[in-house]
Amino acid sequence: MANLRADTCPDISALANEVDLLMVFGGDGTMLSVARALRGSATPVFGINVGGLGFLTSVQAPEVPKVLQQLWTGAYVVESRSLIETTVRSANELQPQVALNDFVLSRGTASRLIELDVKIDGETLTRYRCDGLIVSSPTGSTAYSLAAGGAVVSPAAEVFAITPICPHTLSNRSVIVGLQSKIEVTVLSQKLEVFLTADGQEQTPLTFGNVVQIYRSRKSVRLVRLPGRSFFETLRKKLSWSGSNV
Amino acid sequence: MANLRADTCPDISALANEVDLLMVFGGDGTMLSVARALRGSATPVFGINVGGLGFLTSVQAPEVPKVLQQLWTGAYVVESRSLIETTVRSANELQPQVALNDFVLSRGTASRLIELDVKIDGETLTRYRCDGLIVSSPTGSTAYSLAAGGAVVSPAAEVFAITPICPHTLSNRSVIVGLQSKIEVTVLSQKLEVFLTADGQEQTPLTFGNVVQIYRSRKSVRLVRLPGRSFFETLRKKLSWSGSNV
Amino acid sequence: MANLRADTCPDISALANEVDLLMVFGGDGTMLSVARALRGSATPVFGINVGGLGFLTSVQAPEVPKVLQQLWTGAYVVESRSLIETTVRSANELQPQVALNDFVLSRGTASRLIELDVKIDGETLTRYRCDGLIVSSPTGSTAYSLAAGGAVVSPAAEVFAITPICPHTLSNRSVIVGLQSKIEVTVLSQKLEVFLTADGQEQTPLTFGNVVQIYRSRKSVRLVRLPGRSFFETLRKKLSWSGSNV
Amino acid sequence: MANLRADTCPDISALANEVDLLMVFGGDGTMLSVARALRGSATPVFGINVGGLGFLTSVQAPEVPKVLQQLWTGAYVVESRSLIETTVRSANELQPQVALNDFVLSRGTASRLIELDVKIDGETLTRYRCDGLIVSSPTGSTAYSLAAGGAVVSPAAEVFAITPICPHTLSNRSVIVGLQSKIEVTVLSQKLEVFLTADGQEQTPLTFGNVVQIYRSRKSVRLVRLPGRSFFETLRKKLSWSGSNV
Repeated sequence: MANLRADTCPDISALANEVDLLMVFGGDGTMLSVARALRGSATPVFGINVGGLGFLTSVQAPEVPKVLQQLWTGAYVVESRSLIETTVRSANELQPQVALNDFVLSRGTASRLIELDVKIDGETLTRYRCDGLIVSSPTGSTAYSLAAGGAVVSPAAEVFAITPICPHTLSNRSVIVGLQSKIEVTVLSQKLEVFLTADGQEQTPLTFGNVVQIYRSRKSVRLVRLPGRSFFETLRKKLSWSGSNV
Repeated sequence: MANLRADTCPDISALANEVDLLMVFGGDGTMLSVARALRGSATPVFGINVGGLGFLTSVQAPEVPKVLQQLWTGAYVVESRSLIETTVRSANELQPQVALNDFVLSRGTASRLIELDVKIDGETLTRYRCDGLIVSSPTGSTAYSLAAGGAVVSPAAEVFAITPICPHTLSNRSVIVGLQSKIEVTVLSQKLEVFLTADGQEQTPLTFGNVVQIYRSRKSVRLVRLPGRSFFETLRKKLSWSGSNV
Repeated sequence: MANLRADTCPDISALANEVDLLMVFGGDGTMLSVARALRGSATPVFGINVGGLGFLTSVQAPEVPKVLQQLWTGAYVVESRSLIETTVRSANELQPQVALNDFVLSRGTASRLIELDVKIDGETLTRYRCDGLIVSSPTGSTAYSLAAGGAVVSPAAEVFAITPICPHTLSNRSVIVGLQSKIEVTVLSQKLEVFLTADGQEQTPLTFGNVVQIYRSRKSVRLVRLPGRSFFETLRKKLSWSGSNV
Repeated sequence: MANLRADTCPDISALANEVDLLMVFGGDGTMLSVARALRGSATPVFGINVGGLGFLTSVQAPEVPKVLQQLWTGAYVVESRSLIETTVRSANELQPQVALNDFVLSRGTASRLIELDVKIDGETLTRYRCDGLIVSSPTGSTAYSLAAGGAVVSPAAEVFAITPICPHTLSNRSVIVGLQSKIEVTVLSQKLEVFLTADGQEQTPLTFGNVVQIYRSRKSVRLVRLPGRSFFETLRKKLSWSGSNV
C-alpha cells in the first residue's frame, strides 16, 4: 500500500503500478483527479473520505482502523468504472482528455445563452440554446448531471447521460445513450466564451466551430467497495433519496 | 410478405415464421400486441402507421407505395429491440409475460397511495409510496415513462428506466439500471387493488405480498427501419422535442 | 374547547360555532374532512397530529400537554386558508363541493389516457391527454400536486397550481394562476370513466361533456399555528426538503 | 406616439411622459431595458417584435400597418405588469435596481457551487448550494426561470417564483411566494465571484456577506395587448407548449 498526495506526487500512475492497492485520503475531488492521473492503471483505489459527500470514496476516515484488517484479508469488491474521453477538433491540436464523472461545455460569466449542436453516432440529436451541456459517465450521474435534473444511473449501466443546463425550452429531458456511442458537440456561438471542463477541474477555452468528440475511454479505474455498501444505499444516505416521505 | 390482423389471426408467431417480412398496419398499440404475439420470431416487422403517434411503425400509410420497391431491394435496416419479461411469485402460479415497452404496477380507482418495495439484483433501491411504478425497456422510454417525467433512452442503450408515478416525495428521479439486472417489486399495500399491466394492454390483479420479477427476455423483436430516419428525428418530429425554442 | 370525531359528529359546523377553538385529533385526512365540514365557520382549528405527515396539524400529539397553557394565553397565530369550490355542469344538477387541498380529475382503472380541455377565465389553456389533472389551492401544493411534480406554493400566495398527471408530452410544467381566476375543465373522453375527487376523499363520476368549474370559495378555514413554526420549516422537516445536500 | 431607440435616447422616461403611447421596435431585450428606463411612467408601451421570441411585444413587425388603425381607435387592452426591485446591503451603498423579469444571483466562470441563504419575510427558506438562484416576477416566469425548470406563472398571478439553478440536491422545486413578500438572499461563498443580474442585462458583483433584498416595486410598466391574444396562446405558439402530442 502507498499513501500519497495527488498534488505533490510527480507520477501517480507510476507509483500505482508498484503497489497492490492505492489508499486515497480526500473527498470526491481528490478521487477524480487521482482517477485521471492513474491513466488506466489496474491497481485498485481505496478512497477514504475526509470531507464532503464522498460518493466515490469507500469509507469515512474514522472507519479506517477497523477496515484495514478487512482489506488485508481481501474481503472487498473491486468495481471497474469506465472513464470517458474527449478530443477537440480545432485549429490548435488539443491533447485528448479523460474524465471519470463528466465533460461539461458551459458559458462564461456573460449572461447569454450558448448554442451547441449535438450529434450521436453521426445523427443529429438537437441544437441546444442553453447555459451548458453535461455529458456524464454512469459514475458522474450523481454529480453535476443530477443537479441539472438528470436521471440517476447505476454504475453498472453502460450509458452516457446527456443533460442540458437551463435550455430555453419546455421539453427538457436527460437523454440516455449507449456508452459505445460517439457524441459530437459543435460550438455554434460566435462571440461568447465557451469552456470545456473535465470533472469540474480542468478547463479548456473553446471557440466557434470547435468540435468536441466524447466517447468511452479504453482506460478505466478500479474502485474498492466494501461488501454490503451498495450504490443505492449511498444514494439514500448521502442524497436523502427516497421514494416516500413517511 | 403477409398482411394480417392481430386480433383475428390465430397464431401470428406461426405465420411470421413462414414469411420473410411482416407488414403490420396499425398504430403503436397494434405493434405492441404483435411484438408480444411473435414470441421471439426472427422475422422482421415493418409497421405502417394508420393513426396516433407511430413511434414503433416505420412509415405513414400514404408512403407505402413508394417504399415497397425499397423494401423489395432490401434497402432497409433491421433493428433488434429487447423484450422484457416478468414473473409473478404468488399463490396462484402465473405465466411469465413479455412486453416491448413496459410493465406498470398501479393502483385502481381508489385515491390512495400504494406501497412498493423495489430491489435491484437483490439490493434495496427504495420503498415507493406512489400511484404506480413504470419499469420500461429502452423502447418504452418514449411511452408512459416519458409521461411520468422519465429520461429519453436511445433504443441502443441497454438499460431499464424505472420511473415512479406521482411518488409522495420531492426527490423523484428516473433510475437507470443495466438491462442485465433483475428488478424485484414487492406489493406492500394490504387493502388496495394493485394491477400489473404489460404494454398498457394486459392487466393482472396483484395482492399484498406478491413479488413481481422483471428482467430482460431471451426473446426480442426485429423492427424494420428505413435508412435516414433515426430515433432522434422521430423524437423531434413526433414529440416536438427541441433543445431550443427559436 | 371541544374534542370531537369527524365521523360520529352530526354537525361539526354547528358545534364549531359554539366554541372558541376546535381541537382536532387526527392526521391530514381528518383535517381535510373537518375543514370541509366546517362550511366556513370562523372558529379556529387546532390540529393535533396522531399519524402521517401532519402538514395541516399544528403539533404532534405528545406536545399537547405543554402547548395547552400556550393556547390558553392566546400565544398563537391564526392563519386563514382559502377553500376552493367546484360546480359541475351536467345533466343531473350536482351540488357545489368545497375542498381545502385540491380537486382532481382522473381516470379509472383502464390504462388509457383521458382528454381534458382547460380554460382560464374563458381563454384556452391547453388540451391535456393525461392520467388526470390536479387543481390545487395554495394549501394543497404540498399534497398530490407535489407528487405530480408541481411547484411548492406558500400558503400566503393567492394562486391555484394546475398540475397534470402523466400528460403525454415533453413540455410538462405546473401552471400557476391567480386565485381570482375561474378554471373550467371539460371532459372530452367518450368511453372512459373519469372521476372528480375533492381532497382525495369524495369521488364523483363524470361523463363526456361535463364541465367542471373551479373557483375560490367565499368560505375559508382558520388554522391555528404556534409562533416559530413556519411553513418552510415544516417543508424542510417533513419532506426532507433542502437546497443542498451537505 | 413616439418611435425611439433605447440606447440613443437620453431620457426615455421623460419622453414617455409627453406621449400617449410608446411604440418600441425590438425584441424582449429591448422591451426589458425600456421597461426599466421608464421608471414607472404610466404611458402604455406597444412592443413590435423584430426578432427572437417576442414574449413581451404585442405584434410582429409585418403586422404593424394593419394594427395602427386599431391602436388609433383604442381597440386594445392595457395590462399593468409589476416591476420588482432590489436593494443590496453591503459596504459600498448600492442604488436600488428594478427589473421586469428577474434578478439572478449566479457564479462566475469557476466551476464551483456558490452558497446562498434565503429568507422569506424573515423566515428561513433554505440554504442553496447551486450555480445560481432566479427570483422572477410573474412576467419573468417564461424567461430564465422556465429554462431552470420553473413553473409557468400567469401574468395576473401576484407571486414571485424562486427557482434555483442546478442545486446539488434531488429535492429541487420552484417555490412560489406572494408578491407582497420580502425575499432576502445572503451570499455565503467566500472565495468565489458572485454576480447579481437584473433582467439578464445589468450585472453587479457581490461579495461574501452581501444581503440582497428583493421585493415588489411601487412602479409598474403598462403593456399594450391586442384583444384575443392571450398569454396562454403565446405560450402555446412561441414555446410549443402543449398538454398532449397528438
